[in-house]
Amino acid sequence: MSTVNRQIRLAARPRGEIQPSDWEHHEAPVEPPADGQFAGRTRYISLDPAMRGWMDDVPSYIEPVGLGEVMRAGTIVEVTESRHPDFRPGDLVTGWFGVQEHVISDGKGAYKIDTSLAPAPTFLSALGMTGITAYFGMLDVGELKEGDTVVVSGAAGAVGSIAGQIARIKGASRVVGIAGGPEKCRRVVEEYGFDACIDYREESVRRALRRECPDGINVYFDNVGGPTLDAALLNLALHARVVICGAISQYNSEPYGPRAYINLLVRRARMEGFVVFDYADRYREAQAEIAGWLRDGLVESREHIVKGTVDDFPETLQMLFRGENQGKLILELA
Amino acid sequence: MSTVNRQIRLAARPRGEIQPSDWEHHEAPVEPPADGQFAGRTRYISLDPAMRGWMDDVPSYIEPVGLGEVMRAGTIVEVTESRHPDFRPGDLVTGWFGVQEHVISDGKGAYKIDTSLAPAPTFLSALGMTGITAYFGMLDVGELKEGDTVVVSGAAGAVGSIAGQIARIKGASRVVGIAGGPEKCRRVVEEYGFDACIDYREESVRRALRRECPDGINVYFDNVGGPTLDAALLNLALHARVVICGAISQYNSEPYGPRAYINLLVRRARMEGFVVFDYADRYREAQAEIAGWLRDGLVESREHIVKGTVDDFPETLQMLFRGENQGKLILELA
Repeated sequence: MSTVNRQIRLAARPRGEIQPSDWEHHEAPVEPPADGQFAGRTRYISLDPAMRGWMDDVPSYIEPVGLGEVMRAGTIVEVTESRHPDFRPGDLVTGWFGVQEHVISDGKGAYKIDTSLAPAPTFLSALGMTGITAYFGMLDVGELKEGDTVVVSGAAGAVGSIAGQIARIKGASRVVGIAGGPEKCRRVVEEYGFDACIDYREESVRRALRRECPDGINVYFDNVGGPTLDAALLNLALHARVVICGAISQYNSEPYGPRAYINLLVRRARMEGFVVFDYADRYREAQAEIAGWLRDGLVESREHIVKGTVDDFPETLQMLFRGENQGKLILELA
Repeated sequence: MSTVNRQIRLAARPRGEIQPSDWEHHEAPVEPPADGQFAGRTRYISLDPAMRGWMDDVPSYIEPVGLGEVMRAGTIVEVTESRHPDFRPGDLVTGWFGVQEHVISDGKGAYKIDTSLAPAPTFLSALGMTGITAYFGMLDVGELKEGDTVVVSGAAGAVGSIAGQIARIKGASRVVGIAGGPEKCRRVVEEYGFDACIDYREESVRRALRRECPDGINVYFDNVGGPTLDAALLNLALHARVVICGAISQYNSEPYGPRAYINLLVRRARMEGFVVFDYADRYREAQAEIAGWLRDGLVESREHIVKGTVDDFPETLQMLFRGENQGKLILELA
């Protein structure tokens, strides 16, 4: 076994787009577990749009990653050696272990996964933060009601694809996606079962939403921000809920303010943001329900898996901001 | 008695700022009431920022005023002749009778006012749509809780001044206003009892809010929109409520989108618009409570009364958009 723990650390805070020089490819020694700890080897690393925000030193919903620290990431590790009573070699465990090959844990925030329920990567996807985010965003913040017309931006993405499927399961009468490019739009309709998908690169989203949602939008689940958010605001139904889950179009650029926000007044609507961490005491409730849907074939969980080493993390992360991923982006370590 | 009913009708839809040519000064004959009707003479006309929106031919929460139609306005009229069983000469009645000297009504939407409770103009102010808007905006949409820090923009204005006072009565621990100019700010603190008032013409609202609300804003009641809304979004407390009551800074200009809206996510906050008409079945509840506060001296209702004729309506309305009114702007007809 290697005695070197390769890590990706934050070297500098990006200005605008992330640069290769914002990362340090570091080699740390592999440590043995102390009493009450286990050692693990990273198998899967989750790549998420939110990572861009964690790199900035601004007050946010979570502490920024410190300069020189291992980049924060949700991961799945395989226990290699354990001096902790609850973990044994071979266990697969999820936790916030960061972008590195080897981890040491005292077990706090580490959860064993049961691969009889679903393949391991699904625990970073539909059964992980991704699916749980979609679940509470759509049902709790969006207050989805039966018969609602639902629109999801970033519909081919990790959270968006699941959010739309949950809306359908829970009784939405119409689920419309917004995505970039014909291949993504095809997948949104054919694989995820949306009723329609608007290709924002091909047509005016505002006009397309008017066509696809003639009675207006009851729930708009936004992952992208920017002019797409404005297009949705201009098509709200009365008492609509706009769920602010993310704003990936904005993370690397000057922020765009939604000029049509006054439609919140006209349509007596609300726009609300949320952070999945606030639902920690209800994660299991969401996971249990999603696991049932997966088992029954009601939810399609798609992972976009890139195989490589931790050194491939920086380049893989860029795929998110270039819109190149189809489904949940995961780095699988060889 | 005059046989001519002078009216202000909408002649053209304004582009940007309202121009004198957007109005027609019309003379109609004074009609006698038919059976089941009463005739009245207009005493007071309410002037409201929302009027700007009613002049535009865009889908909104209410039909636009039609070209050639008498301008919509809330008014108080004195019954001069009645063939309606519920109204008699001398009664003072509120209703949406528009900008004209003489009215005919079948009594629908007409409510007698009781001037033993408060002077007549108060029924267009604290006891009218203005006060009711402040009431439901702060308590129902804003979900004011005891101990909240509340910020109100347009704090010297009709709705803002009452919204802040209601927040105080209902247990806000700190109420901060935003207004333009030292005279308005003085009034907000000394007459309306706010804890502080930020003069947006004198300092950075963002920085001033940080100073005045060190624990963040729990309820932001917005009457103005624009960069002031952004300044508030940047100072939200966790789970804050942003109440979109109006956006007077925006009505005559290119709309400004709040770039900091993503703070709704960071602070798990919501921004919600409302229209007071939706609360029609609860108007009396609000009026009864506000009347009690007025009686007990807990609420200061200030009217800015301009005396003139209906022909003075266009120029008087401009005072709202120039920020020249102090309190509820009312045109009193001689």
